[in-house]
Amino acid sequence: MRLTIDNINPNIREAKYAVRGELAVKSEELKARLAKGDKSLPFDEVINANIGNPQQLDQKPITFFRQVLSLVENPQLLEKESVLIDALGYKSDVIERARWLLKSVGSVGAYSASNGAPAIKESIAKFLERRDGFPANPANIYLSGGASSGVNTLLNTICASPKTGILIPIPQYPLYTATLSVLNATCVPYHLDESNSWRTDLETIRASCDKAKAEGIDVRCIVIINPGNPTGASLPDEEIRALLDFAREENLVVMADEVYQTNVFVGKFHSFKSILRSMQQESPGVYDHIELASLHSVSKGMVGECGHRGGYFELVGFDPEVEANIYKFVSIMLCAPVIGQCLVELMVNPPREGDPSYPLYRREYDSIFDSLRQRATALHSAFSQMEGVECAEPQGSMYLFPTINLPKGAVAAAESEGRHPDEFYCMRLLEATGICVVPGSGFGQKHDSLHFRTTFLAPGTEWTNRIVKFHKEFMDKYR
Amino acid sequence: MRLTIDNINPNIREAKYAVRGELAVKSEELKARLAKGDKSLPFDEVINANIGNPQQLDQKPITFFRQVLSLVENPQLLEKESVLIDALGYKSDVIERARWLLKSVGSVGAYSASNGAPAIKESIAKFLERRDGFPANPANIYLSGGASSGVNTLLNTICASPKTGILIPIPQYPLYTATLSVLNATCVPYHLDESNSWRTDLETIRASCDKAKAEGIDVRCIVIINPGNPTGASLPDEEIRALLDFAREENLVVMADEVYQTNVFVGKFHSFKSILRSMQQESPGVYDHIELASLHSVSKGMVGECGHRGGYFELVGFDPEVEANIYKFVSIMLCAPVIGQCLVELMVNPPREGDPSYPLYRREYDSIFDSLRQRATALHSAFSQMEGVECAEPQGSMYLFPTINLPKGAVAAAESEGRHPDEFYCMRLLEATGICVVPGSGFGQKHDSLHFRTTFLAPGTEWTNRIVKFHKEFMDKYR
Repeated sequence: MRLTIDNINPNIREAKYAVRGELAVKSEELKARLAKGDKSLPFDEVINANIGNPQQLDQKPITFFRQVLSLVENPQLLEKESVLIDALGYKSDVIERARWLLKSVGSVGAYSASNGAPAIKESIAKFLERRDGFPANPANIYLSGGASSGVNTLLNTICASPKTGILIPIPQYPLYTATLSVLNATCVPYHLDESNSWRTDLETIRASCDKAKAEGIDVRCIVIINPGNPTGASLPDEEIRALLDFAREENLVVMADEVYQTNVFVGKFHSFKSILRSMQQESPGVYDHIELASLHSVSKGMVGECGHRGGYFELVGFDPEVEANIYKFVSIMLCAPVIGQCLVELMVNPPREGDPSYPLYRREYDSIFDSLRQRATALHSAFSQMEGVECAEPQGSMYLFPTINLPKGAVAAAESEGRHPDEFYCMRLLEATGICVVPGSGFGQKHDSLHFRTTFLAPGTEWTNRIVKFHKEFMDKYR
Repeated sequence: MRLTIDNINPNIREAKYAVRGELAVKSEELKARLAKGDKSLPFDEVINANIGNPQQLDQKPITFFRQVLSLVENPQLLEKESVLIDALGYKSDVIERARWLLKSVGSVGAYSASNGAPAIKESIAKFLERRDGFPANPANIYLSGGASSGVNTLLNTICASPKTGILIPIPQYPLYTATLSVLNATCVPYHLDESNSWRTDLETIRASCDKAKAEGIDVRCIVIINPGNPTGASLPDEEIRALLDFAREENLVVMADEVYQTNVFVGKFHSFKSILRSMQQESPGVYDHIELASLHSVSKGMVGECGHRGGYFELVGFDPEVEANIYKFVSIMLCAPVIGQCLVELMVNPPREGDPSYPLYRREYDSIFDSLRQRATALHSAFSQMEGVECAEPQGSMYLFPTINLPKGAVAAAESEGRHPDEFYCMRLLEATGICVVPGSGFGQKHDSLHFRTTFLAPGTEWTNRIVKFHKEFMDKYR
């Protein structure tokens, strides 16, 4: 029997992943048409605001990182130190770091240990100690191919049957629901509170959890994305404490997706680990059994190196036999890309004040941060002029997630195409402007609301004007 | 309920992956002890002959590849072309290729399309056309993080229930059985014929397939590793034809793991694709419905860049809706590492005669090939002196897989430790010599036989002498 849509793995057939779904595929087609010289389209460039891919939208990589990587890729260059310094402007700390990485990993073309190169795990542990003020053990750190592959490993381990339930925020990054579909486990959704800047609401979470348990679901884990994707919200200290308390009561593994930890405009990033350790210190014995997995990545922040697929997760309070099985699972795929591992090391251990590369590093870092904030603000103010669009102040991450109130005519037109109204809106936006965003239904939203997610990574303001103009015409047409 | 070995995903608990199992973990401990200055061990270095990791064992990367990668990692270097050429010895084709790759992928720090950068897929298609003499369509090529991740994608798609059966050669690379365990699908083992240089035997395969079908298994796919791992065997033309005929009769997807296609000492590599296309040409209509997936990687061959996690697979004859689901599945993990994708491009499109980098490339390539053959031969001749050891002539890949006939005393001693006799032997070998190999039971072997797999990557002959000496003492002790 040939493979067909009807006999392949039904869990894959059922999985949905809107960030790279129909709209993204359509945007690739449009790009290909433009590249072939098609002049019939009403725009001359496609903007992929559907995905947090900073360097695709002209964010420049940090010089220090890429200089070091050029040397670990071609160690022969280290034999010409004076050329590097005098003719190419490499600083001494670039050369030292490259030598240290090569000494630590051997060749970047060799497999590392399955859970990552030991020296890089130690460097991550030191970073966590500086960030949190509490010890970190390299043995509990696992390098991964971006945070996505870490999430995949953890959900594979935790999900034991279709009855396993995982609490997932709505809206969410669809990696979570897609992976749960593939694993045939149960997504237990909890809504974030849009009226309170997309913060968590413990009563809502408790109600979702209780409902799932009443239906026989073995709820095992709560996922928190902090700062939020697609919402940008950063959770305050007391909210994290309440979530950890809830996890303790309900015996839930806490999975903290902290990949946007440096993309914070409003409030302050608090890591789950630092707050857990504080609570353990304040109330000895009470929180000892909490299991926390926290994830980070080189893809976001001011690093923005998605294509390098670097990331890690740290486990706290996990049973050693469970960790042994996680190790075995990651072994099957051998190891995370070693260049990506090196980049994780550079991210967690960047040049410091006094280092030769520090001034440029600082300048580049700050300039990316400021520019992201400016773009977010500009886009937000464009949305605030648009009829029927409500958008919270930009708080962080790389996204805005406005509510759109569409006229009845648009809802009817969408229905006649068999589409959700937000999907219909996004498709028309793409066709009219070349701007690709993701409908809110791809992330989950309350039934009576419509949204879309857009990154604020694209430079300039011309593209925001395109959205404003499209929106006005759309509203006029379907009014 | 906390996560324990008893409640995690049982499929992960049951999975076995010996290549990085207990022996590999023990070898890491021994390395750490040596690094800390422990003088109590009877050796002063650990040799990881358990895993095909050439650059860990001092195989030098190919200069052209790494020069190009250094430039795509740090494109600022391209602004100093004269320094690159005059002071660093980069040839013009290195610079041209780097510019072309950067133009094609944008930044290597940006996500590519989920199935790989279009220009790299086109380059792979051209390579396949040159190699096979038949057209290849870039749309059917998927870049992956090493071949392992491609195997994972394909098995995830094909395996629809615990009743899905996949024909797997025994001995095999344990990625296959481990992944089938994780997916809770059925491994349908077929034994290779050790007495005939580990070739396939169609009657054996048919018998396994029929037996599984009689037990209600829906046998959907046959995996062939060619050249073989751990066996090194290269299948002749007529054997591949027979396998394709069998796949046609039984309606099986053919998964051809061809990562060792350039590691061939005896015979000649024939790709499944080229033979399938020939058969389709010779007998129009008969073989049109065969579904073939063939995999390749930058990890093996003279490239040996495992740590970069680059690979691809090509699909032939797959239903477009099935391909759409494969695309969706790979999208969830976003994309293969882009530097690894660039390396795939370099592998399939290396310098050619007349190019400035060609002479050095040729010299390096040939020298790695010759050196691998010499090491294989030296190791083989050491084995031929060892009592009770039988080893086929080295044919290819990176491994030898000798039979070991152990005395009854050793079998009894193994039993009293609760180990398989081959595992017991390999553990003693590691403790006595620091050489880590993998017991045959990790790959599968006939019940009445014992083997181990060793790479022949380690340089020099001192380590083979250590094995010979250990073996003699072991045999004397347990005689």
